[in-house]
Amino acid sequence: MMRDSRYDILFEPVKIGPVTAPNRFYQVPHASGMTNALPRVRAAFREAKAEGGWGVICTGACSIHPTSDDAPLPFASLWDLRDIKAHALMTEAVHRHGALAGVELWHGGASVMNRVTRTPPLSPSGIPWMATHVGFMGNLKPRTMDKSDIRDVLRWQAEAALRARSAGFDIVYVYAGMGYLGYEFLMPEYNHRTDEYGGSIENRVRFVREMIEVTKDAVGQHCGVALRISLEELRSRPGRHQPSEAHEVIELLAEVPDLFDVKMDSSPTDCAPSRFAPEGSHEPVIDFVKRMTKKPVVGVGRFTSPDSMVSQIRRGVLDLIGGARPSIADPFLPAKIREGRLDEIRECIGCNICISSWHDGVPVRCTQNPTAGEEWRRGWHPERVRPAARKSKVLIVGAGPAGLECALTLGRRGHEVMLADEAEELGGRLRFETRLPGLSAWRRVVEYRLGRLNEMTNVSLFPASRLGVDEIIDIAPDHLVLATGARWTKMLYSPLEIPVGQIDGPGVFTPDDIADGRIPEGPVVLFDFDNYYMGGVLAEHLAGMGLDVHYVTPAGHASAWTIMSNELPLVHRALTRRGVPVTTLRTVAGFDGEAVRLSHLFTGEVTQIAARSLVIVGLRSPRDELYRELTARMAELKAAGVSSIERIGDALAPGAIVHAVYSGHKLAQELGQEVRPARRDTPFGEEEFAPQTEAAE
Amino acid sequence: MMRDSRYDILFEPVKIGPVTAPNRFYQVPHASGMTNALPRVRAAFREAKAEGGWGVICTGACSIHPTSDDAPLPFASLWDLRDIKAHALMTEAVHRHGALAGVELWHGGASVMNRVTRTPPLSPSGIPWMATHVGFMGNLKPRTMDKSDIRDVLRWQAEAALRARSAGFDIVYVYAGMGYLGYEFLMPEYNHRTDEYGGSIENRVRFVREMIEVTKDAVGQHCGVALRISLEELRSRPGRHQPSEAHEVIELLAEVPDLFDVKMDSSPTDCAPSRFAPEGSHEPVIDFVKRMTKKPVVGVGRFTSPDSMVSQIRRGVLDLIGGARPSIADPFLPAKIREGRLDEIRECIGCNICISSWHDGVPVRCTQNPTAGEEWRRGWHPERVRPAARKSKVLIVGAGPAGLECALTLGRRGHEVMLADEAEELGGRLRFETRLPGLSAWRRVVEYRLGRLNEMTNVSLFPASRLGVDEIIDIAPDHLVLATGARWTKMLYSPLEIPVGQIDGPGVFTPDDIADGRIPEGPVVLFDFDNYYMGGVLAEHLAGMGLDVHYVTPAGHASAWTIMSNELPLVHRALTRRGVPVTTLRTVAGFDGEAVRLSHLFTGEVTQIAARSLVIVGLRSPRDELYRELTARMAELKAAGVSSIERIGDALAPGAIVHAVYSGHKLAQELGQEVRPARRDTPFGEEEFAPQTEAAE
Repeated sequence: MMRDSRYDILFEPVKIGPVTAPNRFYQVPHASGMTNALPRVRAAFREAKAEGGWGVICTGACSIHPTSDDAPLPFASLWDLRDIKAHALMTEAVHRHGALAGVELWHGGASVMNRVTRTPPLSPSGIPWMATHVGFMGNLKPRTMDKSDIRDVLRWQAEAALRARSAGFDIVYVYAGMGYLGYEFLMPEYNHRTDEYGGSIENRVRFVREMIEVTKDAVGQHCGVALRISLEELRSRPGRHQPSEAHEVIELLAEVPDLFDVKMDSSPTDCAPSRFAPEGSHEPVIDFVKRMTKKPVVGVGRFTSPDSMVSQIRRGVLDLIGGARPSIADPFLPAKIREGRLDEIRECIGCNICISSWHDGVPVRCTQNPTAGEEWRRGWHPERVRPAARKSKVLIVGAGPAGLECALTLGRRGHEVMLADEAEELGGRLRFETRLPGLSAWRRVVEYRLGRLNEMTNVSLFPASRLGVDEIIDIAPDHLVLATGARWTKMLYSPLEIPVGQIDGPGVFTPDDIADGRIPEGPVVLFDFDNYYMGGVLAEHLAGMGLDVHYVTPAGHASAWTIMSNELPLVHRALTRRGVPVTTLRTVAGFDGEAVRLSHLFTGEVTQIAARSLVIVGLRSPRDELYRELTARMAELKAAGVSSIERIGDALAPGAIVHAVYSGHKLAQELGQEVRPARRDTPFGEEEFAPQTEAAE
Repeated sequence: MMRDSRYDILFEPVKIGPVTAPNRFYQVPHASGMTNALPRVRAAFREAKAEGGWGVICTGACSIHPTSDDAPLPFASLWDLRDIKAHALMTEAVHRHGALAGVELWHGGASVMNRVTRTPPLSPSGIPWMATHVGFMGNLKPRTMDKSDIRDVLRWQAEAALRARSAGFDIVYVYAGMGYLGYEFLMPEYNHRTDEYGGSIENRVRFVREMIEVTKDAVGQHCGVALRISLEELRSRPGRHQPSEAHEVIELLAEVPDLFDVKMDSSPTDCAPSRFAPEGSHEPVIDFVKRMTKKPVVGVGRFTSPDSMVSQIRRGVLDLIGGARPSIADPFLPAKIREGRLDEIRECIGCNICISSWHDGVPVRCTQNPTAGEEWRRGWHPERVRPAARKSKVLIVGAGPAGLECALTLGRRGHEVMLADEAEELGGRLRFETRLPGLSAWRRVVEYRLGRLNEMTNVSLFPASRLGVDEIIDIAPDHLVLATGARWTKMLYSPLEIPVGQIDGPGVFTPDDIADGRIPEGPVVLFDFDNYYMGGVLAEHLAGMGLDVHYVTPAGHASAWTIMSNELPLVHRALTRRGVPVTTLRTVAGFDGEAVRLSHLFTGEVTQIAARSLVIVGLRSPRDELYRELTARMAELKAAGVSSIERIGDALAPGAIVHAVYSGHKLAQELGQEVRPARRDTPFGEEEFAPQTEAAE
């Protein structure tokens, strides 16, 4: 295939100060959760994207000094010479494919807690960040920086920049976004200073300008110096002679950095979930930047379509197409556009499991790309797979996310694959879930896989095919894989968080009932202790049908876990918009068809809500009837030549879509192979470094 | 000094299977937050306790296999040969002081999330733990173990036990507590099995029994094999022929392990905060165990008094005095009892900052012992301090936690120290705070330090001494240290978590007003966005005075951060007992003297609560008037010979007591010394191991 010439513009080189990006695909800095402690894991993860055609590959936040310690949230560091080798592994890997390597040097200011380094956080005026999520709370508030502290930070930035150059980076960042130190200087709420660093916009910009200047002085001859800046709040504030303070800041810095990397201010707007925000949602905030500078501008927007990319460039919004999530979901996105293989793009679904990994403090996971983070640990590649040593006939029962991914990967390995599902429409739980409010983008999990499977001659799809043990014996596959999913149960837990058994009755529903078209009679109490999206989205769905719905949860927030995926505030707003009241900290203690009895989680206080129906979004349990029938007839199956029966996804251990896809992929990678444990990465120790003088000194 | 002979019993040796503990001081397994990634930090932390006389020193939870991966919560591991060296460093350090080293081998079962190893958690029957705190939630639910899974876990335990022996451990654990795998088999709510591992109590005990047996088979000839078991829930359930299932379990296992380590089931009851539980709170649950077995029994109870310890032994409750928190607060507790230095014991205050460190995923911190975790990183010792190279005259202004600790450590180093405070009573913020409901044990922070300071001839205390710049110039110290504390402000934040300025008016109060004796007129709204103890405890205090109090917070829970310190459920119960309603997810938008206007954090919905007073527990700001006056007259101070002015504790960066003590200690350690950055520990890499055969194979 050849690409359409209208996409040629995406493959033009772009000059960034003294270096040149080979094309316009720019993997902006994003968290990998890997840190310097997993240098080989990280290098391989970043390398896959360079191999896939991204012209620039950046690190995530890289601390310049121990006063910027975000633990337990993951971050990279360039604190001293020992940190260089871990990064050099990544830059070498990126350079092997002709891409540039960028490092997001970072000082967290008042937003970090310095829990390990145990030093008071730095800030312009001692104003802490407020937090209402426990994971973001800390009891040590920041101290106010004096002039010598400012000089220190400027020196640390310059020293870190020199180390960055030693590590092989081509682009070095100054970070003035997301509540971090530079941003705190820009914002009058956090900057109450009366010296030349506070007050007027010129003064508030001074620290950021000096950070850029010291970086250019240190490495500007050899490296592009990028400014990453959040513009959402600044754009909402009228300027004195410009439409907004954002305009004034960009005007003041217009020709100072070599590149502008522009973004939003908070995780839920910056890394906006597809459930609540479309692609390109930053544009109204950042669209003005290019008109005020001759320097190249990069920004993100969960772009996966080459047409939207071209439009961003043609319309003068961006010079470089930034990608974070789309580059995780498909490291080969640029290559696929370059080669005209648009159908093969594994599009990001915007579920934000990736950012939840960072909030969890662990290496990145991706729903669409099960190989993310496993490149070194398990030797998995996002595009290539080991051909099967011996081709087998594999029957997969169940075409949800696990079954589809398993079929795809087994098919790529060359096996003869049959994928059967009792439903007419393939997709498993996603058939129903992607019809719920805001979740249509998740359909890409099914579409990407079905698209590829339909092209494969060694894979046969059997929709509307309910298979029992007899049919399976007739088919006589070499290997049988059960991906039969899970069902929601009516199990409840006590206020001590101990399971107390199922509640039943004519008015008690689960999400499966709603999926099957059973409509509860209102008023409805929806009781959610699953805590991820289903409870909230189902409440929206039922309220959208005109039902009177009351959402109840034992957690402190609606869909409490979605704080991890940047969705929580938006879930609350969506429920309010639909007129759904939210009651927190209560468990269901009983239901008599007229009222739901609630018990306060901690105090036991009992209250009631009148309701004709109770929808329980709680525990799921594997659909294992077929598995049990099969294990009862193992001898017959063996006799028929079935050498293994495996379960994957929800049928083995109920989880989110990301777990199902991973489970299906893992089995397909390992089927017929000797399974080795994942490799364990270790950081580089002091003893591995020959003494070396600091390049700067 | 000589010890009272009634404490001699504490120093008797105790046989634990084939090994013998040199005395009855037993540091039970507890989290250090250090993991195999910080082997030198961990070894030095544990060694300090062995040096201080603890007869047994154990690790925290040590995973036997990648299917037990608790990340981002810290845990040790013995997954393969590479893990041995990190542990050997600790056992050697412990053995140097004649103590035994124990390892808490551990499989988390359904309670872990396997976020890094990405394998479905194991469980008896696929029943997950429910969680209402986001930090404990996960979307991947456990799978059900079949017989071969049970055989695998037994084999992993045996293999890990062999590695433990190779690493030099003397005591090897089987863990059946705190919701982990063994516990899940014991509890019918999590164990629905119909095979020989489920149903009757004999069957439910089988897995734990087999775990002990395989461990004894593997290492029982050389190592003591301990069973750690939670008995709280089991004791609440009537047995068939014994008073409770706990009795039946102990009866069934009575002579199987070499040692019983008995405890409670959940973190808030097991590691119970002093605010809500007295010393020895486990006794009513675990007191029966010793009557049912000939094997030694160890248990904890935040014991710091040798009299309570002796009483536990004499009354036949325990054979070994378990210590976790008291061993962190004072690693030299046994030595001090042995040597009759009871006044010098640095008693644990039960604030649970230590366990909050684990919940935070970082190395342990201790309010009372600022050297905890810094033994290797900074070369600090809990009892010994470097003498000052040159004795200086140091004036400390402010005798709160930071000033007291600073004076103590400077005094120990040999400096001439003057500690002045404007109040008659020394203690700073703790004077008021320790009079609030439940916080009296925290007074130990002051008492321990004042006791020692009163014995030192080179330290002078000046209560009721308000010092201005002129007085300081008259005193003419070489070094001036300001520990003037912080004050609570009336700053509010917007629902977007951005500060919006102070709210003022006659009915607006801060905790300082209450401390100063200003009593608000009821009804009172207490608005808490500090999220630690002050808001909750002050609401209790005001309600206890008969005021009508309503607690409001933008977080999801009252005193939301206290989930980290095991206090949160108990805070809710305390507020309910005092008749204080709790409103969450709301910020204060205004107050007119008649009603407080609230705005919903996410939806902006406005509600009102009638109130004559508003108490804001939010931001604190350093009391820096003196510092500013001093900096304005630097020339005079220099002329008077004052060579440095430093701020510590809240006066520099407002924090919890733990931060103040640490800050005061750090300055005292570093005054007049060249300050080196803390050492950075690194794990042992693969390349450092000579190939070695597994001892087991």
